[in-house]
Amino acid sequence: MTALPQTMTALLQKGDGYSGTAEGPAITDASRYLETAEIPVPTPGPGQVLIRLRVASVNPSDLHFIKGEYGQPRIKGTPAGFEGCGDVVAAGEGAEGLLGQRVSFVASPGGSGAWAEYAMTEAMTCIPLRPDVSDDDGAAQIVNPLTAMAMVDIAREAGDSFIISAATSQLGKLMTSLGRDLGLKPIAMVRRDNAVEPLKALGAEEVLVTTDPEMISKFVAISKALKPRVFLDAVSDQISEQIFTAMPNGGRWISYGKLSAEPPQLTQMGQFIFMGKRIEGFWLTSWMRSTPPADQMRVIAEVQARFADGRWKTDVSTHLKLGDVVSGLPEALKKTDGKVMITP
Amino acid sequence: MTALPQTMTALLQKGDGYSGTAEGPAITDASRYLETAEIPVPTPGPGQVLIRLRVASVNPSDLHFIKGEYGQPRIKGTPAGFEGCGDVVAAGEGAEGLLGQRVSFVASPGGSGAWAEYAMTEAMTCIPLRPDVSDDDGAAQIVNPLTAMAMVDIAREAGDSFIISAATSQLGKLMTSLGRDLGLKPIAMVRRDNAVEPLKALGAEEVLVTTDPEMISKFVAISKALKPRVFLDAVSDQISEQIFTAMPNGGRWISYGKLSAEPPQLTQMGQFIFMGKRIEGFWLTSWMRSTPPADQMRVIAEVQARFADGRWKTDVSTHLKLGDVVSGLPEALKKTDGKVMITP
Repeated sequence: MTALPQTMTALLQKGDGYSGTAEGPAITDASRYLETAEIPVPTPGPGQVLIRLRVASVNPSDLHFIKGEYGQPRIKGTPAGFEGCGDVVAAGEGAEGLLGQRVSFVASPGGSGAWAEYAMTEAMTCIPLRPDVSDDDGAAQIVNPLTAMAMVDIAREAGDSFIISAATSQLGKLMTSLGRDLGLKPIAMVRRDNAVEPLKALGAEEVLVTTDPEMISKFVAISKALKPRVFLDAVSDQISEQIFTAMPNGGRWISYGKLSAEPPQLTQMGQFIFMGKRIEGFWLTSWMRSTPPADQMRVIAEVQARFADGRWKTDVSTHLKLGDVVSGLPEALKKTDGKVMITP
Repeated sequence: MTALPQTMTALLQKGDGYSGTAEGPAITDASRYLETAEIPVPTPGPGQVLIRLRVASVNPSDLHFIKGEYGQPRIKGTPAGFEGCGDVVAAGEGAEGLLGQRVSFVASPGGSGAWAEYAMTEAMTCIPLRPDVSDDDGAAQIVNPLTAMAMVDIAREAGDSFIISAATSQLGKLMTSLGRDLGLKPIAMVRRDNAVEPLKALGAEEVLVTTDPEMISKFVAISKALKPRVFLDAVSDQISEQIFTAMPNGGRWISYGKLSAEPPQLTQMGQFIFMGKRIEGFWLTSWMRSTPPADQMRVIAEVQARFADGRWKTDVSTHLKLGDVVSGLPEALKKTDGKVMITP
């Protein structure tokens, strides 16, 4: 093993704490939130490991986070980035078993994020990777896939059909194919006509195009036939509310993202009372806190098997080098056919 | 027992089904929804009883119902009115045990409502009254009191403190004193300054005046101190949303009424995700369907005991005769210091 360098390149957060805004994940100027800098390589403490980055992913949660609109506060001057894949090159007491292994990991961008040449994290958040899982898949194997597994599980307990907004997102595609594989009937919402056939091929029973003026009346008919009781929603705008009000008795609007900045208006309060409907949220961090480790391990093994045998794959639109992220991120995010990945 | 007449005076619904509007319970012209008429006295079938009315109550749910904005459809030409008190004067097969008894009852205004000289209903919805319960209390002993008991029970399971909107309503007052009696800390919301002291005397730990421009900032401080996790809300407007967003982690907005016609806007979708908040509803009809009969009987006995010993009482603002309701109801509803009651 070669000696570790003293310093590393990292993308540091410029903001601190919460911004108080609710703009959504759009980024027009990344230099408002990030700067490239050379900082000391961290040293792992007990139970921690140091990982040399192979690939880090850019998730919507990363964008919410660097803008100060996420569920945990920013710490100015520390590297951003929740999720990546890399090699364990140093380990603190009790974590030596991971030395030399290629792992998927979740970083805590409160201290040491994944958007850096080296990331330090707790050994227990690392998942050793099978050789048949690629680096790109390894870098996107936790946040989206576990969210997909956990949310489709909620949907499955509530009935045969469920609704997915922003279905062309990586998470939307994972949930669509997983739903189909479990014998459920996913109803996918997309923005563009040309996404209809790919989503159907992936497993969507019905695909709604949100720009179609007939979209809601079409959904009313679909809702009567399929009775979807769960709406897994990444957008959370007025169209979401219209979908919610057209769901059957007991319908649950589960928001897990806020891609739109529009604050939706509740036009049918009576449905909470007379139809037993509700609005709630989903956050993977809460799921991890409340789900027993054995159940999490089972889900993680299933996730890796799905990537290894090709049932799931990570569509990548762009690889950006760490030094090119501040200038190149807004343009890279405009491509909607896959994820942006960061490499050292 | 004297012979029954062939016909009776009743207040008939003029609307049919749902109106599709969401105006709330305000009534400016009762003749749009009700007409006084002479119709045949119904004959009870098996398991049913005929009740000669002593007093019927006017609940917000009655007003929502006659306007076509309630959870069940109107049937044109049948008497309105959900709840009353009277004497059982005829009984079908299997219900003879109630003959001659004074009872509280819930009518099904889909067929035979309480706003009539005689009402027919299922024997199992009748509660024989102790002699120490007055007719007025008997006429308001089911809808509001059971709702109060069931909702405060939900609040108690969630923590020590809870919020009540429209706290000067009969239901609000029942919940305030019940909360205090259970050792909880009710936070009451009222519209007028002069309601503050009476609510405190009844058991409110804090009273917020919704017209106070400082109301929300005052609530923010109260919320930090008392950590109310349940908001029992009869209003469901934008102020409700502001209260909800200032509640702590895990906060639940439970809507059971829509006194305001304003559709609230959800300004903090992220709280569903990161703070585990949710919006849901409460409907006594659903509670009755899902709560085992033994538990319901226990709650009903407790309600009657509270009225008999004076811990609860029904404040009455006006008694209207059946024949005066169409002309007098809007004016009577303007008084906010008690319920409107209907007598034959």
